Amino acid sequence: VSRESAFITALRPLAGDPAARGLLDDAATLRFGSKNLVLTHDMIVEGVHFLAEDPAEDVAWKLVAVNLSDLAAKGARPLGVLLGYSLTGNSDWDDAFVAGLGEVLHTFGTALLGGDTVAAPPLAPRSLGLTAIGEARHVPPARSDAKAGDLIWVSGTIGDSGAGLRIALGEIDGPPELVARYRRPRPRLELGQRLAPIVTAMMDVSDGLLIDAARMAQASGVAARIELAAIPLSAALLSAAGGERQARIDAATAGDDYELLFAAPAERTEAIRGISALLGLPLTPVGRLGGGEGIVLTYEGTPLPLPPRLGYEHAAAPD
Amino acid sequence: VSRESAFITALRPLAGDPAARGLLDDAATLRFGSKNLVLTHDMIVEGVHFLAEDPAEDVAWKLVAVNLSDLAAKGARPLGVLLGYSLTGNSDWDDAFVAGLGEVLHTFGTALLGGDTVAAPPLAPRSLGLTAIGEARHVPPARSDAKAGDLIWVSGTIGDSGAGLRIALGEIDGPPELVARYRRPRPRLELGQRLAPIVTAMMDVSDGLLIDAARMAQASGVAARIELAAIPLSAALLSAAGGERQARIDAATAGDDYELLFAAPAERTEAIRGISALLGLPLTPVGRLGGGEGIVLTYEGTPLPLPPRLGYEHAAAPD
Repeated sequence: VSRESAFITALRPLAGDPAARGLLDDAATLRFGSKNLVLTHDMIVEGVHFLAEDPAEDVAWKLVAVNLSDLAAKGARPLGVLLGYSLTGNSDWDDAFVAGLGEVLHTFGTALLGGDTVAAPPLAPRSLGLTAIGEARHVPPARSDAKAGDLIWVSGTIGDSGAGLRIALGEIDGPPELVARYRRPRPRLELGQRLAPIVTAMMDVSDGLLIDAARMAQASGVAARIELAAIPLSAALLSAAGGERQARIDAATAGDDYELLFAAPAERTEAIRGISALLGLPLTPVGRLGGGEGIVLTYEGTPLPLPPRLGYEHAAAPD
Repeated sequence: VSRESAFITALRPLAGDPAARGLLDDAATLRFGSKNLVLTHDMIVEGVHFLAEDPAEDVAWKLVAVNLSDLAAKGARPLGVLLGYSLTGNSDWDDAFVAGLGEVLHTFGTALLGGDTVAAPPLAPRSLGLTAIGEARHVPPARSDAKAGDLIWVSGTIGDSGAGLRIALGEIDGPPELVARYRRPRPRLELGQRLAPIVTAMMDVSDGLLIDAARMAQASGVAARIELAAIPLSAALLSAAGGERQARIDAATAGDDYELLFAAPAERTEAIRGISALLGLPLTPVGRLGGGEGIVLTYEGTPLPLPPRLGYEHAAAPD
């Protein structure tokens, strides 16, 4: 069990409000008058979630985008954000961060509502937090309500961001559009709002398609079967990494995709394809939920042993 | 101008939504259907806002209390909090933090709704953030709507927390109740809700009575006159520090009081005294607002030169 999991288990008794969803969902959801409020808070830390040499504009973009992606996964439109910012004495970096923040807020049509700025001690890594608040017209889909028999779908393409990080680190060659997917993810806000009323469960892919699908299955008390060959890969990724089995496993475990992963009964397929056509965005069935528990991976129908790592595990405890 | 002020000035163009109140208030306030939502986010950093050796239970208490105090200042009752937590590898500290968090949430009748936990790099100072969300029955009073002619009031007693810190640091002697006021401030939630409909402006005293009164006056476009002899001091503070002029200046500039500072026309005095009697909590007029700008300090009616430091200034730029 990871340290983070152990800590969240310790926090759970303090989260008895149904709005907290047992701390098992992407966001808190609060009925407020006749409306559904969705609230999420994510942090990013220098040296863990971004590198000191990453452009500050991109750090700002990513901080906002990962939070808006949680709103997207609950079908909410953003109402605004609160920023928790550590000043560390480099005003050029601060200025660039503000520029990137303005750009991402403008791009996704939301505004800064408030927050806090603190002076961090000298040499402390930057630690940035953001709270996003949104409004959902429908009861936000949980990640825990998927049913046996549902198809598992994913939006867009998977693995681009993971390859983009490897390109940025100089480990592989590849086109700059993959790096852009790593540095400037685009939360699927409109898609999430359209899908919310017709899915049984929805979450975003932040830690890796396989680990996130396994979490949805576990939270829902069902088993997931994922077909590796069905996972949608971009032309850019195919050109950089190929489409063989190992490249597909890499894509499905890399994380940072910020695509939407959702479950829906087969009779919703036409409606889902209609949304895909309307938005010009691929939505692809990649597997199915069934009775039991755990995750099974297949490649062209044949079960494969699970890779040792299904995705990003937070704060793993040293053994 | 401090680095923090410069940064907030740079952020202001991103905060055009009226809910942001120009980043000049204690909290964001959002009209949501027929209700008023109040949102605030404060961070505390080890080595800046608390010491590595402070009990983790008290750090948790203070993190929650300072945010709930912002809700109190806007007349809101808390609906819940989102926690941003840095794991730093000391599970005893984490366990004690969770215990303190449970205690403070229970004391003030609210719950954990969600948040994020990250693994900070080794040796990084702890950086903790909290977002509190609340609901106000009345339009939340701003800090910027005080009027010339209003009386300036403060709740409770001032300076206890500042003396408590000095006791904790071994600089002076004094009773443990002052240390408790430093470590475990009590947000004035019920008071804030009762005052909200009858005040013209309200904020909490976090950085020091004088600097916070000066900020209210500046935001409202008026001048403040504060009578040092009127500032309410506790019996414990009088016994530890005396009630002489310098002790009063120390109390009025120390900060961390988390009392409410509010302005109201003289005809509200009976209503305010009624609330004071109902809650068994002193509410004391300490000055008056007038035309002009700036702050004037008097002692028994005679103007005094302002002390070099009116309170805690955030992230001052080195000259």
